[in-house]
Amino acid sequence: MQEHPSATLAHFAATLQFEDIPEPVLRRAEDLMLDWFGSALAGKAGRPVQIIEAFARQMGPTEGPCEVLVSRAGTTPLFAAMVNAASSHWAEQDDVHNGSVFHPAAVVFPAVLALAQANGASGRELLTAAVAGYEVGIRIGEFLGRSHYRIFHTTGTAGTVAAAAAAGRILKLTPEQMLDAFGSAGTQAAGLWEFLRDAADSKQLHTAKAASDGLMAACLAQAGFTGARRILEGKQGMAAGMSTDADAARLTDRLGQRWALAETSFKFHASCRHTHPAADALLQVINEHHLRPEQIARVTAHVHQGAIDVLGPVTNPQTVHQAKFSMGTVLGLIAQFHAAGMKEFNDAFNDIAIRAFRDRVTMQLDEEVDTAYPLRWIGKVTVETVDGERFEGRVDEPKGDPGNTLSREELESKALRLAEFSGAASSDEMHAAFERLWHIARADVVGRLLP
Amino acid sequence: MQEHPSATLAHFAATLQFEDIPEPVLRRAEDLMLDWFGSALAGKAGRPVQIIEAFARQMGPTEGPCEVLVSRAGTTPLFAAMVNAASSHWAEQDDVHNGSVFHPAAVVFPAVLALAQANGASGRELLTAAVAGYEVGIRIGEFLGRSHYRIFHTTGTAGTVAAAAAAGRILKLTPEQMLDAFGSAGTQAAGLWEFLRDAADSKQLHTAKAASDGLMAACLAQAGFTGARRILEGKQGMAAGMSTDADAARLTDRLGQRWALAETSFKFHASCRHTHPAADALLQVINEHHLRPEQIARVTAHVHQGAIDVLGPVTNPQTVHQAKFSMGTVLGLIAQFHAAGMKEFNDAFNDIAIRAFRDRVTMQLDEEVDTAYPLRWIGKVTVETVDGERFEGRVDEPKGDPGNTLSREELESKALRLAEFSGAASSDEMHAAFERLWHIARADVVGRLLP
Repeated sequence: MQEHPSATLAHFAATLQFEDIPEPVLRRAEDLMLDWFGSALAGKAGRPVQIIEAFARQMGPTEGPCEVLVSRAGTTPLFAAMVNAASSHWAEQDDVHNGSVFHPAAVVFPAVLALAQANGASGRELLTAAVAGYEVGIRIGEFLGRSHYRIFHTTGTAGTVAAAAAAGRILKLTPEQMLDAFGSAGTQAAGLWEFLRDAADSKQLHTAKAASDGLMAACLAQAGFTGARRILEGKQGMAAGMSTDADAARLTDRLGQRWALAETSFKFHASCRHTHPAADALLQVINEHHLRPEQIARVTAHVHQGAIDVLGPVTNPQTVHQAKFSMGTVLGLIAQFHAAGMKEFNDAFNDIAIRAFRDRVTMQLDEEVDTAYPLRWIGKVTVETVDGERFEGRVDEPKGDPGNTLSREELESKALRLAEFSGAASSDEMHAAFERLWHIARADVVGRLLP
Repeated sequence: MQEHPSATLAHFAATLQFEDIPEPVLRRAEDLMLDWFGSALAGKAGRPVQIIEAFARQMGPTEGPCEVLVSRAGTTPLFAAMVNAASSHWAEQDDVHNGSVFHPAAVVFPAVLALAQANGASGRELLTAAVAGYEVGIRIGEFLGRSHYRIFHTTGTAGTVAAAAAAGRILKLTPEQMLDAFGSAGTQAAGLWEFLRDAADSKQLHTAKAASDGLMAACLAQAGFTGARRILEGKQGMAAGMSTDADAARLTDRLGQRWALAETSFKFHASCRHTHPAADALLQVINEHHLRPEQIARVTAHVHQGAIDVLGPVTNPQTVHQAKFSMGTVLGLIAQFHAAGMKEFNDAFNDIAIRAFRDRVTMQLDEEVDTAYPLRWIGKVTVETVDGERFEGRVDEPKGDPGNTLSREELESKALRLAEFSGAASSDEMHAAFERLWHIARADVVGRLLP
């Protein structure tokens, strides 16, 4: 096969072996899958997800080997991937790769789980395919660059090819077929940020379509449907049409040596990422000094300018969504519940105690924090108590970033909260699923995750 | 509803009434539908179409109210639209709107037919919806401009919104819902020309996905799924991401007064459009002087420079596809069969007699023809006979353009040839379908087109 970036990347995706993947990367892949599982269940509560799920029921078959997590129905791979991907991105609790600004789990796992269930694939095959999807998608996101992200939702565009890579690996495509799958995926890649202006529902559509279109591309390639060989870097390919600063060297950056999957961050709090460093620093102070909310007279969050720009205008949030952009609300929930998850936001964002705490919080520009950003997101708070004590809290990497990752217990706890929030699964069902997921590498066949 | 180009266009599509459409436009819509029907049947012979049809069977339900023309199977609207759209574009015999370089039929009719069959819509509703799809899609193609077409396949991109408009009209969306449908369609719009470099199969995927994604957008909108309100002209919308010369005024150009559908051209010969003017001029001479091929010693085609650029390199075509770009082969088929359709190409492009005729054809740059191009495609030939006679042929508009359109007899004859070529329907079945299609405006319910 001719050597060029698309071909090299396709060859990598098609030939990646379980044995090639370092142990820590495999364990992290399991972490990411369990984390994804919780996010996918959280989406059951989302109106846009429910609409896509109903569409899938209307257009698809009423039974099949693939699990729709939010409805427990069985269907074909196309619709399972579509609905599970829609639901994965709704709660905004799914993972993110900082450098590519790409959310891999939401598009990769729905495609691999659906095809694994349809084809009786093993857990090792599933993990290998997921890793292929992460490595491909993250590199394409980096390749398309900042100019792409200004207009296009990278998770929709790069995500389509990531899903094709993952799906293609489950289907055991040859390198040539994988390149065809990339071609068919890339020529379907879409997703525009314009919906943000109207707070429209497109985000769930983007992940739904990235996963199902990528899966379709892989299935077509298996059947002999050909695609462009340079869909990424060609003269009329993705970058030519949708980027002005694309860097083809990123596509093949240290393939097989650098594991981009392991750079992926978990989201811990269910709020705007700009609130996370301060939330972690406050939690540190509270835990260390056993502070109750009413003992706290005042919190100063020492932040970067970007946090002030984004969060500053939100002084009196009226909706859950707005509250996620209120530093005072987030710190209030942390003080009250030691957590700012979906449930805390929905139940309490507007409670009197939280509103009162909110008004005791201020943000202050901090030179050290601002200089380190965006490479490092340092969290610093000063807490003053009603007794006149003064405590400083500091975290150098927000909870969930690779250097301060979530433990398996924390991941379980997050997933349990998400499932409980949406009512998608009971605690017992979740624990049974955790058991399966932590041992997925030993599963001969990937079965259903829920009864 | 706020006034802006996307909203105005969506309002037009949602409120267009059968009674608003002039009689000649309705008759032309029937012509275009019958012409589309033939193209859709021709696709049965195409490998990429067969692969997409198999994928639809694998992923979709095994029965449903919507007709897959190439297989006669019933399925849900999503898959009927997908497969029928894939097959419509395969033979390259479907219609084209010159100004927007957009093939409307291939994406509009599959979406409307599928939803009309699913919802028991009337023929009047179907025609109204189709007109809405043409008017919307053509204006979006014009709006996106030449810069878009250099990288993107307009039939895939503008086509997604055209299909949403048509589907949305069948579903009786309100103007607000139609705007949502535009938003969900535009954010899925995709299709890159990169595949041309490798002669890959993406063209059928583009129409398949435009029709089915547009249909999905309309169905979601009906269920309350919201979309960006300015997906066409917004700061992060289609034009922002995929065009540098977009002209928003084109989106609402004389809505309800200019009927862009009636500007659409039929393709008559199954060859490169650059061969059509000369083919028509030769046919004129042959018919007028009752010439047999062996009486013709030499043909000079007086052409524009573009024809020489594209067709000049093809001197000894080895495949049917290449033969469609050989002026000598096309004129040879015209001389032999008075037609250069799918069947003639497949059966005879490489016959000794055709090859011999081919070598008696030359192209010559003609100042008048070249100056008139591309606004007018004048056809001029000089025919010299073995008896030393010399005849001049001339057509001022190639067969199929609005000023020289196909009669209903010619449309039937073209459709019959296409169906016979692929074996998708018998002559009797075709005649029964013609009967239905010519009287579709009186049908209370749009039923199946084939038994």
